[in-house]
Amino acid sequence: MNVEEVFHMNGGDGANSYAKNSHFQKKASEMVKHITIQTIQQAYLSIRPNSFGIADLGCSSGPNTLSIVTDLVEALTREITPPPAEIRVCLNDLPTNDFNSIFRSLPDLYRQLRKAGTDGVAGGSSTVFVSAHPGSFYGRVFPTSSLQFVYSSYSLHWLSRDEQGKSINKGKVYIAESSPPSVSNAYIDQFKEDFALFLRSRAEELDAHGRMVLILTGRIGHDHVDRGNSLLWELLSRSLAILAAQGAIEEGKLDSYDVHFYAPCRGEIEAEIRRDGWFQLERFETFGMEVKFDEAKESFGREVARTVRSVQESMLGHHFGEGLSLDSLFDIFARLVDEEMAIQEIQPANFILVLRKL
Amino acid sequence: MNVEEVFHMNGGDGANSYAKNSHFQKKASEMVKHITIQTIQQAYLSIRPNSFGIADLGCSSGPNTLSIVTDLVEALTREITPPPAEIRVCLNDLPTNDFNSIFRSLPDLYRQLRKAGTDGVAGGSSTVFVSAHPGSFYGRVFPTSSLQFVYSSYSLHWLSRDEQGKSINKGKVYIAESSPPSVSNAYIDQFKEDFALFLRSRAEELDAHGRMVLILTGRIGHDHVDRGNSLLWELLSRSLAILAAQGAIEEGKLDSYDVHFYAPCRGEIEAEIRRDGWFQLERFETFGMEVKFDEAKESFGREVARTVRSVQESMLGHHFGEGLSLDSLFDIFARLVDEEMAIQEIQPANFILVLRKL
Repeated sequence: MNVEEVFHMNGGDGANSYAKNSHFQKKASEMVKHITIQTIQQAYLSIRPNSFGIADLGCSSGPNTLSIVTDLVEALTREITPPPAEIRVCLNDLPTNDFNSIFRSLPDLYRQLRKAGTDGVAGGSSTVFVSAHPGSFYGRVFPTSSLQFVYSSYSLHWLSRDEQGKSINKGKVYIAESSPPSVSNAYIDQFKEDFALFLRSRAEELDAHGRMVLILTGRIGHDHVDRGNSLLWELLSRSLAILAAQGAIEEGKLDSYDVHFYAPCRGEIEAEIRRDGWFQLERFETFGMEVKFDEAKESFGREVARTVRSVQESMLGHHFGEGLSLDSLFDIFARLVDEEMAIQEIQPANFILVLRKL
Repeated sequence: MNVEEVFHMNGGDGANSYAKNSHFQKKASEMVKHITIQTIQQAYLSIRPNSFGIADLGCSSGPNTLSIVTDLVEALTREITPPPAEIRVCLNDLPTNDFNSIFRSLPDLYRQLRKAGTDGVAGGSSTVFVSAHPGSFYGRVFPTSSLQFVYSSYSLHWLSRDEQGKSINKGKVYIAESSPPSVSNAYIDQFKEDFALFLRSRAEELDAHGRMVLILTGRIGHDHVDRGNSLLWELLSRSLAILAAQGAIEEGKLDSYDVHFYAPCRGEIEAEIRRDGWFQLERFETFGMEVKFDEAKESFGREVARTVRSVQESMLGHHFGEGLSLDSLFDIFARLVDEEMAIQEIQPANFILVLRKL
């Protein structure tokens, strides 16, 4: 399927929307915010352009989008004298992203910035322009040398295509214990191709000394199968298999479904950056998130299910069609996650990278 | 009411959408396309930047939006050697505009441009970047000196506010025969204030020698009441009054509704451009459209009703609330338009202006 024209986080602000179900992503970004803030300030101080261009790649929609915009604008206006005269905030995501709901919040954002004295329109320090640039970041999105800072949180683990395991990865949606080596090789190759294209495109769009902060899902060791991300996809495979066994979906449809996702390890990322040669890797950190059980709330499994649903619904719906009940699927998935958590924690790993354009 | 947060053309592509009901606007733009094309080429040839910035102010959504984008890109790539290395197409409208539906058509647009050899991604001549910049054009929207060409079709007759005739313009939604002079003065003042702000903002955003093409509704003589635009608003007033007499809407609500619209005359426009002093008026033309009766089709009144509905529904719905049946209102309006057309033609006038940044 054409990922670029199908894949998107669930729009709007309903019960299954990404806006309502992206606490995990928010929490992870918050944990490393100090690094993001420090990096954007370094980028500005080493270039000092009149008009400072920031891109948020894979911005999605919902509170996380404008919350990071506010943080980045404030980082440039609060502690830096003089701040840039103009700040261009360039939001990017695929063309099917719900940009309308971001735009509807913009008047509030501008009011908030003016109140805080950060928007020059009311005599504050910088004039802020927010724009949207739809398209795949696996390719050019912005004019040459138009950016000074690139930010991307929870997007780079999404591959440009979903052709990795087709038909050879029977019953599984991601690399699993039972997957032949050709499956993991196909995923690795796709990741390398995509990441190289990402780096080359950003190298053209970024000014010299511009910085990138990339936050993404990764894996700790060399093994693809772990109690981090791969287990969650394994549980999704099992949930789909249960529905297939009940006759609710065709087995063939499950065999031909693969997530366009890849959790790279540190070495795979570093090798691409070195080979590309346009960026200096200034920082690489691994971080996990503590999983807290709040007994007053619904189960952890339900929370994970809603998060996964808000990012996977567009692709699952497209592939399996109306025959698939997403409610049933994620009820089963939530139960399987809870069962696993009762045995032992599931700990997805996250990476934050800081890169400097040479 | 806050025009910026309420007013928008009807989104999507349903029966009442602007996408389906903007033939009049399309036809008018087509009639003067040769002037638009010639002007953008002059703008490029007198500046010759590597990256050429085009803004479409009040772009709305639907086929008209991307049709003009295609025309403008082709004007820069077909007959000019060498064409600009990069073309930035910057779409602007209020934050409630349906940008999502434009974005969903972008992959097709890029494919079409690549096929025509105009997009450099496939070795063609120029790399095209389309972005959206939501906000009111009565104020800054774009970074300083970032544009070389500004286009605006059927937008500048919409004022930034709807406070003109409030309460003193009883039973009317626009300047009418019965309106006291204070009403037309309030409309004129608002137009002058808005147009001055428009010119000042664009002067900051455009490069020296950059050009603007502005297409808008105007009036021929000095009199505000004519068989052009004002008659259509008069018929809308009458339609609302009929509903009020039936008790379907409150009379007080009709008294407090005024359209944020103004059809300026040539003298009013020229005076503002002279006073502002940033632009040279290179061309000013008046044009009308022949109204053709296609007997195979539904009535002319119905066609006008659907056009007016697609641009006024957001404001009418917000002001009158759920009590107002838009179907009933525009059934009455269509009938009144047909009755008037049986007496004599209704001929709205249109202006096209070409301005050069000094």
